[in-house]
Amino acid sequence: MSLVLLRHGQSVWNLQNRFTGWTDVGLTEKGIHEAHEAGKRLFQAGFSFDIAFTSVLNRAIQTMWIVMDEMDLMSIPTVCDWRLNERHYGALQGFNKARMAEIKGEKIVFFWRRTFSGRPPELTFDDPRHPRFDPRYRNLDPYKLPASESLEDTLARIMSLWKTAIWSCVQAGQDVLVVAHGNSLRALLKYLDNIPDEDIPALQIPTGIPLLYELNQEGKIVSRGYLWER
Amino acid sequence: MSLVLLRHGQSVWNLQNRFTGWTDVGLTEKGIHEAHEAGKRLFQAGFSFDIAFTSVLNRAIQTMWIVMDEMDLMSIPTVCDWRLNERHYGALQGFNKARMAEIKGEKIVFFWRRTFSGRPPELTFDDPRHPRFDPRYRNLDPYKLPASESLEDTLARIMSLWKTAIWSCVQAGQDVLVVAHGNSLRALLKYLDNIPDEDIPALQIPTGIPLLYELNQEGKIVSRGYLWER
Repeated sequence: MSLVLLRHGQSVWNLQNRFTGWTDVGLTEKGIHEAHEAGKRLFQAGFSFDIAFTSVLNRAIQTMWIVMDEMDLMSIPTVCDWRLNERHYGALQGFNKARMAEIKGEKIVFFWRRTFSGRPPELTFDDPRHPRFDPRYRNLDPYKLPASESLEDTLARIMSLWKTAIWSCVQAGQDVLVVAHGNSLRALLKYLDNIPDEDIPALQIPTGIPLLYELNQEGKIVSRGYLWER
Repeated sequence: MSLVLLRHGQSVWNLQNRFTGWTDVGLTEKGIHEAHEAGKRLFQAGFSFDIAFTSVLNRAIQTMWIVMDEMDLMSIPTVCDWRLNERHYGALQGFNKARMAEIKGEKIVFFWRRTFSGRPPELTFDDPRHPRFDPRYRNLDPYKLPASESLEDTLARIMSLWKTAIWSCVQAGQDVLVVAHGNSLRALLKYLDNIPDEDIPALQIPTGIPLLYELNQEGKIVSRGYLWER
């Protein structure tokens, strides 16, 4: 049983070194190229997918579409679910990461960015950046929508999608593609690879390089590895 | 309750005046432009969609994606179903329409192309163009896959999707987009607008111009019209 994880290509705010979170920024030219490259190489390596999951953020959906196009799989079912969204970065969203480290100090910014439990300052309920103002989330309880998340919070909502949908597809023998984000994939990897909390800060996932998993019926990993090394 | 129908933008074989049917040709530059234009104008006119249906053919899916992108609706649910495919043109697929009229005669080509019951010669079961060789249709009974269709045949399979899925969404109050093909939309319009068989030859649907329907709870049309006149 196989599962392929893919972090979207470089986004505009990746390039500008800004905290992105749920902000809906697009891919750069490089990011679009990375998505094409991922699709081409998966196709050349003989991969195919029965279903693709992604977040509701455009940079991940665009990456998924490009991969589907390159693999001649444009008509497979797709699921866009907010639970695969990037980790919500709270009030940090939009700020430059280096500038924020200067203002607040390296230590606290590292804690927010890289640790498992660090949760950035929340957006206030009336902040125009609060997800309740985005029509994509209008069917969700505004009081349950995150206004900031730790990686642990992110993992909890990903697991609810994993258990009810993604894992069911994999277990049923379907070839599954998941296109998501740097931190939502870090959270999923923590679960899949059983990574201890203290090793999480060192875990980084490159953009645009498919990560391949083979799993057995119990969901244990038989093999894992990137399609190529950067 | 509202429903918007859209014929995909100009395809490579529209431009070359060839019978296309289920052949999976792409959009031309003009076709891509038409799709962007449709999306922009729908957005400017204040339309939004809760779900989009399309065929499993790339030219329709690409048109749908462009419209979703232009309308900032990339994350809405989509359904790609073979029952919205273009009418299957049988053994005519790939041939130039004018050349075929020279060889076979205007009258029979008109009968195949424009009438409700005209069914072109079938593809043989072993013809490499037969849909059973296409992985998109591998879960369907190869003996039930069409090897040629009249518009009447096309309408029958569209109705099975209409009744089980599209109409249910419209009736539940969802704003629905259907992106399909010249002949699959002609068939659907025959049903929606209750067009007599003898008026079908004159019915043509332009590429890339959204056709808007308002319906009441019983599915009767309250109003209809193109978003703009060409």
